[in-house]
Amino acid sequence: MNLADTPLHEIDAYMQEAWKAFHIYRKKSLKERAAFIRSIAIELENCGDTLIQTAMRETHLPEARLRGERGRTIFQLNSYADACERGEWLEASIDTAIPDKVPAKPDIRKMLIPMGPVVVFGSSNFPFAYSTAGGDTACALAAGCPVIVKAHPAHPETSHIVADAIFKAAAFNNLPLGVFTHVYGASFETGKALVTHPLTKAVGFTGSYGGGKQLFDWANQRKEPIPVFAEMGSVNPVFLLPEKLASDPAGIATAYAGSITLGVGQFCTNPGLIVAIESDALKTFTHDLGKAIQKTQPAAMLHAGIVKAYKEKKGNALLQDEVHLVAESETAVKEDEGLPTVATASAETFLNNPLLHQEVFGPYSLIIRCKNEAEMLEVAQHLEGQLTATLMATTSELKKNEELIEAVKNICGRFILNGVPTGVEVCLSMHHGGPFPSTTDSRYTSVGADGIKRFARPISLQNWDNELLPDELKNENPLGIWRRVNSELTKKPV
Amino acid sequence: MNLADTPLHEIDAYMQEAWKAFHIYRKKSLKERAAFIRSIAIELENCGDTLIQTAMRETHLPEARLRGERGRTIFQLNSYADACERGEWLEASIDTAIPDKVPAKPDIRKMLIPMGPVVVFGSSNFPFAYSTAGGDTACALAAGCPVIVKAHPAHPETSHIVADAIFKAAAFNNLPLGVFTHVYGASFETGKALVTHPLTKAVGFTGSYGGGKQLFDWANQRKEPIPVFAEMGSVNPVFLLPEKLASDPAGIATAYAGSITLGVGQFCTNPGLIVAIESDALKTFTHDLGKAIQKTQPAAMLHAGIVKAYKEKKGNALLQDEVHLVAESETAVKEDEGLPTVATASAETFLNNPLLHQEVFGPYSLIIRCKNEAEMLEVAQHLEGQLTATLMATTSELKKNEELIEAVKNICGRFILNGVPTGVEVCLSMHHGGPFPSTTDSRYTSVGADGIKRFARPISLQNWDNELLPDELKNENPLGIWRRVNSELTKKPV
Repeated sequence: MNLADTPLHEIDAYMQEAWKAFHIYRKKSLKERAAFIRSIAIELENCGDTLIQTAMRETHLPEARLRGERGRTIFQLNSYADACERGEWLEASIDTAIPDKVPAKPDIRKMLIPMGPVVVFGSSNFPFAYSTAGGDTACALAAGCPVIVKAHPAHPETSHIVADAIFKAAAFNNLPLGVFTHVYGASFETGKALVTHPLTKAVGFTGSYGGGKQLFDWANQRKEPIPVFAEMGSVNPVFLLPEKLASDPAGIATAYAGSITLGVGQFCTNPGLIVAIESDALKTFTHDLGKAIQKTQPAAMLHAGIVKAYKEKKGNALLQDEVHLVAESETAVKEDEGLPTVATASAETFLNNPLLHQEVFGPYSLIIRCKNEAEMLEVAQHLEGQLTATLMATTSELKKNEELIEAVKNICGRFILNGVPTGVEVCLSMHHGGPFPSTTDSRYTSVGADGIKRFARPISLQNWDNELLPDELKNENPLGIWRRVNSELTKKPV
Repeated sequence: MNLADTPLHEIDAYMQEAWKAFHIYRKKSLKERAAFIRSIAIELENCGDTLIQTAMRETHLPEARLRGERGRTIFQLNSYADACERGEWLEASIDTAIPDKVPAKPDIRKMLIPMGPVVVFGSSNFPFAYSTAGGDTACALAAGCPVIVKAHPAHPETSHIVADAIFKAAAFNNLPLGVFTHVYGASFETGKALVTHPLTKAVGFTGSYGGGKQLFDWANQRKEPIPVFAEMGSVNPVFLLPEKLASDPAGIATAYAGSITLGVGQFCTNPGLIVAIESDALKTFTHDLGKAIQKTQPAAMLHAGIVKAYKEKKGNALLQDEVHLVAESETAVKEDEGLPTVATASAETFLNNPLLHQEVFGPYSLIIRCKNEAEMLEVAQHLEGQLTATLMATTSELKKNEELIEAVKNICGRFILNGVPTGVEVCLSMHHGGPFPSTTDSRYTSVGADGIKRFARPISLQNWDNELLPDELKNENPLGIWRRVNSELTKKPV
């Protein structure tokens, strides 16, 4: 396959085509948009084994994982299509006129409308679920926005096959050409041209802090700034309270060895920081976790750039004063593999060294040893924004550590009790987002159908006749959606 | 009264106090927050005539307007308190566990939580409704955030009286000192110190483009960028379609003369641009509007800075090639007054001169003469983001001008049919916001209780025991709020 970089001078033409398509696509009903998204799911299934084999070659991910991820992506597309059609995300709201109020209250109705063309940057670690036909694309299409995807340069052929599936689905649903565009390019300039184009109205991104922050800065420096939803990573701290840890240090070590090394540590929710209080139980936990890490087989990482970054960042962390290696896999690594590794440092060392707060993307975790609960609280208070945080605690410990719980709530988007952070359920109650620097906009999720709202904004229609209103706001509620009518949630007609 | 500028070195201490208060205030129930906000409304009423007289002296606004605005502010506080307590804004969502799913689905529950201390910049044009105890303050307090208000330097004494009312309400409700802070200062540095302080988590602002954009840039250049909700103004274009205009040119002229000069044109929704097609009816309309403007008495504007800016910006607009004066008030103006003025230019002149697209804050409007409907569409397509847009059209014209309607929807936050843009109803279906540059975040409103969501972000709690969950998410739904339970909106317990 010859997937040359999209020439920069072609980008304007693509954006113009997307803008033209926007004016057609935005008027498609919720049902029509949902049908399109469901067609993408069908076409993705139709790609069959070719897609899986191409992705295996390009990403080094194992077959079972990729089959699972395609299944998840299809589920995601269908569930966002359902949510699109249910229409709650529109936040439809009606206040009827009160002519004899002084001054007279006019009829005012509000709903979300699509923002315009959305540029999506595919991720490297989820070649299906967060790439060409991934969550950002599905959400933007549900919102009524055309999508321009820049394929991740690490898996262009996989992306190409998926893009073809979307083109087929668009044709099947008689949608205009510009409703979906797929461009290629590893260069800085391609991304910049897309984000700074005046017809781009929002950006979705999953990747590194450096990449996401650059897009965010470009977007805010535009004449018309636009929102950037960049999910940039996280160290996902885990707080092990002593009573809980003492109850089962070996079991917790086993669970965390699995979570740290799952998918060669290439998940944004990988637990990169384990914070505990010095004790015999912590020694047992550290020992057992080390043993499990020693026995974990290294595996190939997604691409050469990720292996290089992992080696460098991990190497750098281990070179810091008072950071000690606990264990690494006993199996020698090949050039393209990531070596599972656990290290440890005191809370004092951690608090005084900002470098140790940074994510090391891969199968690595740092155990922070605190002298006492006060020091653990101090660590929590000094962490940056995180996608997730986890607390391992007994019921009595939960009652005694209210301040720690509040501090952790301040910094995370999802707070797990007695579990592991890896595994992100696709459902309406999932928030996959978090305070900066884990994302650029803590108010929105990139997993679950609430993510549709990222690509829409409210408009109020004042004094419009019923027949001129969109179906979503008509008196008779022809779509049967939930609406607020004079401040009361209801499906009833006005 | 001696209201000296708050020394810059004190700002850190105020922010620390607000941060301490945040950890107490965020845990207050919806009912307790609502009680606090209702107390502020009572104290504002208790300020009596002193407050009105002080505001009259500082703002030059007439007594009736100020009494009306205080009434509106009290209504606003009470209605946001009601919405706070109703709790729909929390977007509570519950997905119960499915242990036998593969992999097992954990129990996940989501709700909005407060972001942290919010800095609010009081406006000059609404000394009550968008100042110290205005909409931004009420929304942030409802969300559970402490508020730091920088009083508008044009009405410090008015703001001081209102701040005292809030302090009384806070004391009455036994709230910590830092829940509300009031600072003074006309300088650039005060604003910068507040927005760039690391404990500030969001900013509300109502004022000029220059001011709002500066805050937005500071906020995005922080190590941890934070959201800025700046409502910065708008020219609020009005599109007069020919059949509608011909049906009643004199009546429409009367309505618009009133809207343009209401409150000396000092409303963010003032119609600054009237777009119509050349015709005899347009001549009649222009003539009649001019006559009405000639007869309108000038009045004092809010402060010397606004009078100066009005004279300069209007003068500059009138100096542009091919811009012609239609009429101005026949009454000579005093130094502190704004002279009601209407001018006109061709669509071609307008399209070629970006200066004419800028807001002239005051009793001024520019009539744009188009050759035909195609040129009117071109004008609509070339406008920047607006708080409002208005269409005056007959039913048959609405059916023929779908493209114009779509183009206008793209640029505005509220779309009025056959009315005037001035008059902003406080209700849930009101969206007072719009694409950049009318605001810095088109997704949020600064009028209506949905504005509470500006100061909150979602968090998911995974695998928490029922007794440890906040009341909002407990199985039994003790607050009786609307929640999504396994994707269905309901008030029922789980």
